[in-house]
Amino acid sequence: MNQKVIFTTLVGDAIDDLVSQLGAPQIFVIVDVNTAQYVLPVLKEQSKAVQDATVITVKAGDAEKTLENTHTIWKELHNNNATRSSVVINVGGGVVTDLGGFAAATYKRGLRVINVPTTVLGAVDAAIGGKTGINYNGYKNEIGTFTEPIASVITSDFFNTLSQQELLSGYAEMLKHGLLESDEELNKLLAYSVVYPIFDAERLLSLIETSVQVKQRVVEADFNESGYRKVLNLGHTFGHAFETLALKRQSPIPHGFAVAQGCVAALVLSHMKLGFPSETLQKFADYVRKNYNAFAFTCDDYDFLYQAMLKDKKNLTPDTVAFTLLEEVGKPKIEVPATKEEIASALDIYRDLMGI
Amino acid sequence: MNQKVIFTTLVGDAIDDLVSQLGAPQIFVIVDVNTAQYVLPVLKEQSKAVQDATVITVKAGDAEKTLENTHTIWKELHNNNATRSSVVINVGGGVVTDLGGFAAATYKRGLRVINVPTTVLGAVDAAIGGKTGINYNGYKNEIGTFTEPIASVITSDFFNTLSQQELLSGYAEMLKHGLLESDEELNKLLAYSVVYPIFDAERLLSLIETSVQVKQRVVEADFNESGYRKVLNLGHTFGHAFETLALKRQSPIPHGFAVAQGCVAALVLSHMKLGFPSETLQKFADYVRKNYNAFAFTCDDYDFLYQAMLKDKKNLTPDTVAFTLLEEVGKPKIEVPATKEEIASALDIYRDLMGI
Repeated sequence: MNQKVIFTTLVGDAIDDLVSQLGAPQIFVIVDVNTAQYVLPVLKEQSKAVQDATVITVKAGDAEKTLENTHTIWKELHNNNATRSSVVINVGGGVVTDLGGFAAATYKRGLRVINVPTTVLGAVDAAIGGKTGINYNGYKNEIGTFTEPIASVITSDFFNTLSQQELLSGYAEMLKHGLLESDEELNKLLAYSVVYPIFDAERLLSLIETSVQVKQRVVEADFNESGYRKVLNLGHTFGHAFETLALKRQSPIPHGFAVAQGCVAALVLSHMKLGFPSETLQKFADYVRKNYNAFAFTCDDYDFLYQAMLKDKKNLTPDTVAFTLLEEVGKPKIEVPATKEEIASALDIYRDLMGI
Repeated sequence: MNQKVIFTTLVGDAIDDLVSQLGAPQIFVIVDVNTAQYVLPVLKEQSKAVQDATVITVKAGDAEKTLENTHTIWKELHNNNATRSSVVINVGGGVVTDLGGFAAATYKRGLRVINVPTTVLGAVDAAIGGKTGINYNGYKNEIGTFTEPIASVITSDFFNTLSQQELLSGYAEMLKHGLLESDEELNKLLAYSVVYPIFDAERLLSLIETSVQVKQRVVEADFNESGYRKVLNLGHTFGHAFETLALKRQSPIPHGFAVAQGCVAALVLSHMKLGFPSETLQKFADYVRKNYNAFAFTCDDYDFLYQAMLKDKKNLTPDTVAFTLLEEVGKPKIEVPATKEEIASALDIYRDLMGI
């Protein structure tokens, strides 16, 4: 990883410092309609570089990560005489950094990029891997590049523009990182709540900083996504199945909510198969039950959930579900197979713990 | 530079070896209509990997380096279930490697690429820099990436499918590299001729190998295109002006021909300003006159040529023409300014030497 990752409560100063280090080049700021409304005015007050920049606005939402919108950005860059020394600042969530990052990575063989993530999930993901991409032909991130930004500026300043649901959804990934890291980190996370009005933005920023470090260590340990990186799947096998069931019921749940609840189910299975401590399981389940709505289902749904897990592309063979589990907090074990019966038992206990 | 560059007369074996080292992945071969007709049948006989590959054919010519053709390639990759472990083999000239390279670099954030250049110019350029790109919005290579192939397989096997003009045009860049390298290399190049029927493909391959090394050394010495790399502009300031004049007359000349003749003019100016040895100048001019048609003009064209040179984007100031010249073979000097009068004198001597 070559990019700088800056954690700051003075986001405008950080941007202006970076821009001046880069020789005060021509700046383009890419925002979506939400960050244009809620974030850009604040950034303009705080940063001379953003004030002087050419702003390119795209629509919001994953459905806008299209080649058509890539065209729009390319044309705006062209019409405003962008050169290879121009710099693009992406201000927004994953859609803006993916789409803006892809357009910038391919314009004149690559402009330099600074990312300013405005969501918790974006902040936790920003420092990692330099993925850019658009959806194409009905597939997510089908077209894209691995191109690291030169810097990511991570700030808590804009988290107050996020909905409760967005905050919680991003925080779920941080809980997962806490489980992968240590009892100490997990306890810090469980002692904190992103639920309004308790919400403390600066403390959240410091928790994000640790969370980013956890993810960086995992990714650096496994640059080619071949093995150890699978620890990041913790909670995702159950989580995806929950999402699929919710989708079938035509009442989708946010990905982060599914991950938080999937982590509870994974800890149950970890307890059953690897002796994960029941006290920690109980504490974690309590936190999720209180902060995230319990995702409810009955034993009639078990077969559907099992079939969904079988289709998970991370399985090693088509007829065995493989999980990332924990022996204890900070001790993940990847590719642990579980039988249909074991999964059903885990789901029974999950329902007990979550009171459903 | 991380890519392998393989010089071989057994191109099929080289491809099959590479593919087997890569774990025998699914292979896509991208060709244009010309290489589909003249090169692909031969490659299929020589290489099991090519035989089993999915072939994607695009139209030939620089005008086909479009986003539409990128779509075509993306769709073919998709329809044939390409995964991130698939490998794309580009077989063709610069259009195929630029376009196929761009499509591969952006599909699922990047498939691995092997380039098999089939032109002399492609072979000399192949090992360098990993440029991919398409034309967009009326500009050449406006959209693209820097993405190195994992390997380039350079062979003389397909040069007999090239026209005399294509051979000569590619050879001009090699002559330029010879001038930048040493008397020994230059003499080897001047002792050889790509003109049929003398043409000796294996000897040409060995000359290309040296030529590639010269270019690699220059590019490695100056990765950011900021300074020393300008030595590669040798002959191009005059050459571009000749091309512009030819275009005005509505009888365009191949780029390589303009470069060869531009090198003669640059050596004249080098002799005048830096004492470049007249014997070598004479010998080089003789070779160019014999092998390339002399580009003819009169003193009435001097002002047009001068204006064209003033517009060269490589000048340091808008009212001074800056040249890459040689003190002697192997001793280039960049950014040498010359007056309108000096340029006119050089063009006088050029016309004498070329017998026009």
